[in-house]
Amino acid sequence: MRASFERSELLRLLGPATKPVEARNTIPVLANILLSVTPSADGITDGTVSITGTDLDIRITTTGAAKVAEPGAVTVDAKRFEDIVRKLPAGAEIAVSTEPNTLIVKAGRSRFKLPTLPVEDFPDITVGEFDATFTADVAALFKPVQYAMSDEQTRYYLCGVYFHVADGKLRAVATTGHVLAQHDGPAAEHFAGIIVPRKVVPLVPPGEVTVSVSASKVRFAAPGIEVVSKVIDGTYPDYQRVIPRGNDKVARVDRAALAAANDRVATVVSERGRAVKLSFTAGAVVLSTRNEANEAQDELAAEYASAPIDIGFQTGYVASTLAAFSGETVEIAMNDPGSPAIFRDGGPLLAIIMPMRV
Amino acid sequence: MRASFERSELLRLLGPATKPVEARNTIPVLANILLSVTPSADGITDGTVSITGTDLDIRITTTGAAKVAEPGAVTVDAKRFEDIVRKLPAGAEIAVSTEPNTLIVKAGRSRFKLPTLPVEDFPDITVGEFDATFTADVAALFKPVQYAMSDEQTRYYLCGVYFHVADGKLRAVATTGHVLAQHDGPAAEHFAGIIVPRKVVPLVPPGEVTVSVSASKVRFAAPGIEVVSKVIDGTYPDYQRVIPRGNDKVARVDRAALAAANDRVATVVSERGRAVKLSFTAGAVVLSTRNEANEAQDELAAEYASAPIDIGFQTGYVASTLAAFSGETVEIAMNDPGSPAIFRDGGPLLAIIMPMRV
Repeated sequence: MRASFERSELLRLLGPATKPVEARNTIPVLANILLSVTPSADGITDGTVSITGTDLDIRITTTGAAKVAEPGAVTVDAKRFEDIVRKLPAGAEIAVSTEPNTLIVKAGRSRFKLPTLPVEDFPDITVGEFDATFTADVAALFKPVQYAMSDEQTRYYLCGVYFHVADGKLRAVATTGHVLAQHDGPAAEHFAGIIVPRKVVPLVPPGEVTVSVSASKVRFAAPGIEVVSKVIDGTYPDYQRVIPRGNDKVARVDRAALAAANDRVATVVSERGRAVKLSFTAGAVVLSTRNEANEAQDELAAEYASAPIDIGFQTGYVASTLAAFSGETVEIAMNDPGSPAIFRDGGPLLAIIMPMRV
Repeated sequence: MRASFERSELLRLLGPATKPVEARNTIPVLANILLSVTPSADGITDGTVSITGTDLDIRITTTGAAKVAEPGAVTVDAKRFEDIVRKLPAGAEIAVSTEPNTLIVKAGRSRFKLPTLPVEDFPDITVGEFDATFTADVAALFKPVQYAMSDEQTRYYLCGVYFHVADGKLRAVATTGHVLAQHDGPAAEHFAGIIVPRKVVPLVPPGEVTVSVSASKVRFAAPGIEVVSKVIDGTYPDYQRVIPRGNDKVARVDRAALAAANDRVATVVSERGRAVKLSFTAGAVVLSTRNEANEAQDELAAEYASAPIDIGFQTGYVASTLAAFSGETVEIAMNDPGSPAIFRDGGPLLAIIMPMRV
């Protein structure tokens, strides 16, 4: 194997491909990336380099341009190789070649010898057949619901985004049981819904991607990048049952001002899991917190005309829910202090927070 | 006590004053700052606010402007109070008043009640008499030697900067035993040298300060700020004995290029404490590292005319030493691979690195 790359191109390809690679591995080859180069068919134009990283559940491959003198493939430590490339000067031309069990990296007067592991040991994820294929901006669909994914392994089926079609549209749903977020996208053909693992969600390439789904795998592909992942083998709960229908106490509040006031009153209850009490009366909402001898109170204008209501939420849930929206005004629809409240901003995102007793 | 402050002024005063305050304290009042307000003598111009934080070894007091309706003093949780002030909107006018055991903080429609502890419980550091007083830009003198302070409590007398007069000039020295840095300042009258504790060193106010020293205390004062600290009760070793005199193998290298090359070759020996070998020959220096099957090598132009020499240093020491200098070119004076090397850039900083066997 002999090839050379532009530093910036190599860094661009290493970024996504090294993401699934875990720093600590019991299987040594999983700390490596698979680096493989192919000359162009015509022998005149540039050849290609592909870089793959995996943790056995997720596999990401990126492909780009390289000058290839001799085709070949090696596996080499992902972090070390990326560090070396990053530390070489901007604009450097990076040449690689192989010796037995060794990758030689050269750029200018810098020279590195890195141990390699056999390409045959690099694991593959059997992809199999897909049941449906379509295109969509999946990263944009997932982004506003990410905060609501669970990380409790006891409820592994909540540790991801439920990606499916509802009412003829693509939909992403995430919930911890205490908060829930539901984001609708464009119209789409029905497919059997999948649970995309939480580690994969931020790795979906930005922009329009080709999505292929089966009962066990999902693939997101765009020019120069392919992300393949196992999906979570479980049944997503019937989240629709959690979304209340009769919440007729509706307040409208400036979203940024509410987030800032929540952040301020949270100062005195810094311990995780403490509640803020929202007291809605005609035209105003008062936020208040209390922790031993500390108290805080803030007040905002609110469009509100129903009977006064006091409702408590965990301050952290209020912060993450409000941050997921983008509208200037947020609408909070409540029923009573013991029932979930719905947050909306007139867009395709709906969020729910379970209240706390205050 | 009743007073009000501009948010930006209060933040400016809280910044340095809260620095000595430790997050976890067995003595509750040490988590607090002492906030005290005094009206102006004429009753027309602004009054003053002073804020003090301490950890029993260091005490920092800042003083600024306040509108004072009723003089008084309280102690209140440093972190919580600063968080609240920071989270209030820019330009806010912040009013404080007291109720029994309580500080009330108001700004706009935000209101906080914070528990207080008795002012009498707030510890004082007995300052006593000082033996010498002078002015100097101490922060600038200390800055380039900070990296060489030890943090090993077994040699507590190295855990700070040795601040003294040598050859008629102010001098700051720090050493871990493996590296040493010596920085000279302007001419000064002799005083008995002191060891300034490592926690205090970055807290010295920037610019010219009035310095007062005694055998047990040091005080750095500038308009609006006073830093008082115990000094380390120990004898600084005779560092002059460590500085070699006969190093006649002298190389001159581009400082930034050497730092970048050291950083690159360090990639393959990421474990702390590994060595880089510098091989000086006429006109060039080759840097090389090795760790199991990994190897790296880099080469730079060097002004060097003595007999070839190979010398090894810990990569981290090379990085921190080079970063302390500011000149374009660094001069490295060596004797043999087993003796300390001297780094200089033509300025008032001299640094030493003990070599490692390579």
